[in-house]
Amino acid sequence: MRTVDLIHRKRDGEELSGEEITYLVEGYTRGEIPDYQMAAFLMAVFFAGMSERELGALTECMVSSGETLDLSEIPGVKVDKHSTGGVGDKTSLIAAPLAAAAGAVVPMISGRALGHTGGTLDKLEAIPGFRTGISTAEFRAILAQHQLCFAGQTDELAPADGKLYALRDVTATVESIPLIASSIMSKKLAAGLDALVLDVKVGSGAFMKRQVDARRLAQAMVAIGRRINKRVQALITDMNQPLGFAVGNALEVMEVSQTLQGAGPADLTRLSLELAARMIHLGKVSDSIEEARDRAQRRLLDGSGYRKFKEVIVAQGGNPLVLDRFDLLPNATGAREVASPRAGFISAIDAGDIGRASAIIGAGRETKEEAIDPAVGVILEVKVGDKVEAGAVLCRLYYTKEDHLEEAAQQVEDAFKISTHPPEERELILEVVG
Amino acid sequence: MRTVDLIHRKRDGEELSGEEITYLVEGYTRGEIPDYQMAAFLMAVFFAGMSERELGALTECMVSSGETLDLSEIPGVKVDKHSTGGVGDKTSLIAAPLAAAAGAVVPMISGRALGHTGGTLDKLEAIPGFRTGISTAEFRAILAQHQLCFAGQTDELAPADGKLYALRDVTATVESIPLIASSIMSKKLAAGLDALVLDVKVGSGAFMKRQVDARRLAQAMVAIGRRINKRVQALITDMNQPLGFAVGNALEVMEVSQTLQGAGPADLTRLSLELAARMIHLGKVSDSIEEARDRAQRRLLDGSGYRKFKEVIVAQGGNPLVLDRFDLLPNATGAREVASPRAGFISAIDAGDIGRASAIIGAGRETKEEAIDPAVGVILEVKVGDKVEAGAVLCRLYYTKEDHLEEAAQQVEDAFKISTHPPEERELILEVVG
Repeated sequence: MRTVDLIHRKRDGEELSGEEITYLVEGYTRGEIPDYQMAAFLMAVFFAGMSERELGALTECMVSSGETLDLSEIPGVKVDKHSTGGVGDKTSLIAAPLAAAAGAVVPMISGRALGHTGGTLDKLEAIPGFRTGISTAEFRAILAQHQLCFAGQTDELAPADGKLYALRDVTATVESIPLIASSIMSKKLAAGLDALVLDVKVGSGAFMKRQVDARRLAQAMVAIGRRINKRVQALITDMNQPLGFAVGNALEVMEVSQTLQGAGPADLTRLSLELAARMIHLGKVSDSIEEARDRAQRRLLDGSGYRKFKEVIVAQGGNPLVLDRFDLLPNATGAREVASPRAGFISAIDAGDIGRASAIIGAGRETKEEAIDPAVGVILEVKVGDKVEAGAVLCRLYYTKEDHLEEAAQQVEDAFKISTHPPEERELILEVVG
Repeated sequence: MRTVDLIHRKRDGEELSGEEITYLVEGYTRGEIPDYQMAAFLMAVFFAGMSERELGALTECMVSSGETLDLSEIPGVKVDKHSTGGVGDKTSLIAAPLAAAAGAVVPMISGRALGHTGGTLDKLEAIPGFRTGISTAEFRAILAQHQLCFAGQTDELAPADGKLYALRDVTATVESIPLIASSIMSKKLAAGLDALVLDVKVGSGAFMKRQVDARRLAQAMVAIGRRINKRVQALITDMNQPLGFAVGNALEVMEVSQTLQGAGPADLTRLSLELAARMIHLGKVSDSIEEARDRAQRRLLDGSGYRKFKEVIVAQGGNPLVLDRFDLLPNATGAREVASPRAGFISAIDAGDIGRASAIIGAGRETKEEAIDPAVGVILEVKVGDKVEAGAVLCRLYYTKEDHLEEAAQQVEDAFKISTHPPEERELILEVVG
């Protein structure tokens, strides 16, 4: 088998066998296939795509390139939830406690903020004392006791994916649906899951701008799950405005607390409940999705999701009082209002702009090495469809340093579109795949 | 400027500026841009193509990456001829002497055989004593005196092309029309040419299997010439059967001699004359192509092309007597006949098969390092359209070793298609571009 022949065949649209995919991925991981050949292969995949069989083989190879977490000793169906990344997307911190409170077992492996999108780990670390870098033994123990534990990915899980991702990042091959799908799925599957609920975001604030691409990504991930006997479902959801009102780590923890207490924004509550219901259903706690929705709703109303989150915060070293006393969270030192230049209806709030503004003042990072300011961010005062007067406050930027504040304010102003007529209503949950 | 952004834009079908192409090629040649980024860029070019402006910039960059031969002190328009590679294609050794005898100045920079196609340098080196590895000073001196000199490419000419080609070879990005076009043109233009006649082969024995691809390649090369004020014309010619009867280095020299004496095969004579006429015309020796054709024809009939070739053989250290006494050329020690299995008409002779058979017994090489046996090859006894009886000799394999002889004979047998009806006549010169 010659690597150049495999690149050639992929380039010409042929399907490679599982054995050939394995040869490429294992050879690359071991350093026997050089970066330049893998770079050419990745670009060929960008253009020529991959069949479901190739995708399955690629994902399995990446999973088996490193350690896999064995959670089989913990009873129950292990179900996780993953979002492709949005702005103001704190659903993991709501759906996971609700699902766990309803009886699902949720080993949640999360990522960090990058670019204009937030990361679950950064949000959790806004809670004083909360430890995300825990050992495997501790992860298992907390999961067994509380049915929920939050942790970060480690380099030991799917190292081939890490190596491939670093190469994709410098060769303009990140935006390939099969490569995104196999990357996400390999990291998740290496963590010992039985089932996975995916939230594929589409819109201005998401990686996928078009619904057709989001659907293809969702279908690819569901297909990978099907090939290796994991239960996978994907929601395709709107990211044309931030989810909820809060964007920024500590600000989002506050909104999570409100939502788990039944006083959250309508869109955030609705999506979190649906994700929790899908987790409960795939986690085999309920026989039907209707029953699962009912359970999720009840766990929200009776406060057991809220209590579950507190329980896990304590287990992971965090201060649970922050959920009631927001002054115990990192707080911004200043707030800058952004006012509406005229009266009208909010027809769009570009989530990408809001996310970038928030990142500019410190809530996000451009490279993995940068530090994050947990206190800062944006709180929207309006959502799409709202009527505003001229001069009304559209949102507030919460900051700790005035550097880049005006630039961020400008970016936020650009995000709001104000029209004379009310916009058409948009669905939040656009499709279910799988 | 970030390399990854340039790859990204090319990938998405955008046109890069000349400055951006320069950044990539110079950065790569200097070792500042790594192989893996260039590999991804090349694969993106494979799929997304290049505009004429990009092509021009790429070629100019490769030309200026090394030395360029300055032939301006030699009077006259310097015109070369280049073939994209065929089987039995010895037109360079006929057209160049004819054009030089007619008054054109022909600095001929040639390549070697690779795969199933022959190389002009290998053919010349079948002549005992002939030196192709001559210094620049000697090249200039012979050219000034005889209006013709043959030499090989050196690593000093267009080194960026050499580096890029080596990368393309291992990343399955050889078969890209803009990359082929810029590679050919950069090597030719670095050799100080004013004009160039291209012979783009199409068919079973050629790199380009489809006329549409051959046309695109021809158009790309002509466009490069136009952008940098060089006179470039391309013929698209048929390579669905070998050109002439002889395939193999010494065998082809014999056929060259016969052709220059007016006793060559019709197809070879016709194409060589047309190429010579195009060289004479682009070399500004004649005002019209008709006049140039007339001159080429006369130089053939009066024997001055034949004498010019002898003159240059002497100048480059070779034994000119070989053109009359073929026993002075390397000779095969055995011949194996391949007979027709049945009566009928020759409807096809796969030039690729004939070339590969010839290479198998030693006339060609798979890698640049392999040695060539100048004596061996194939002589066809029939051409497409001929009527044959069952058992008639289709061709003879001339060999010096019996290794692989049966394999080669089998390959040759496969090359001949015999039908009950005469095939449709095929044009030899299919198109003129430029």
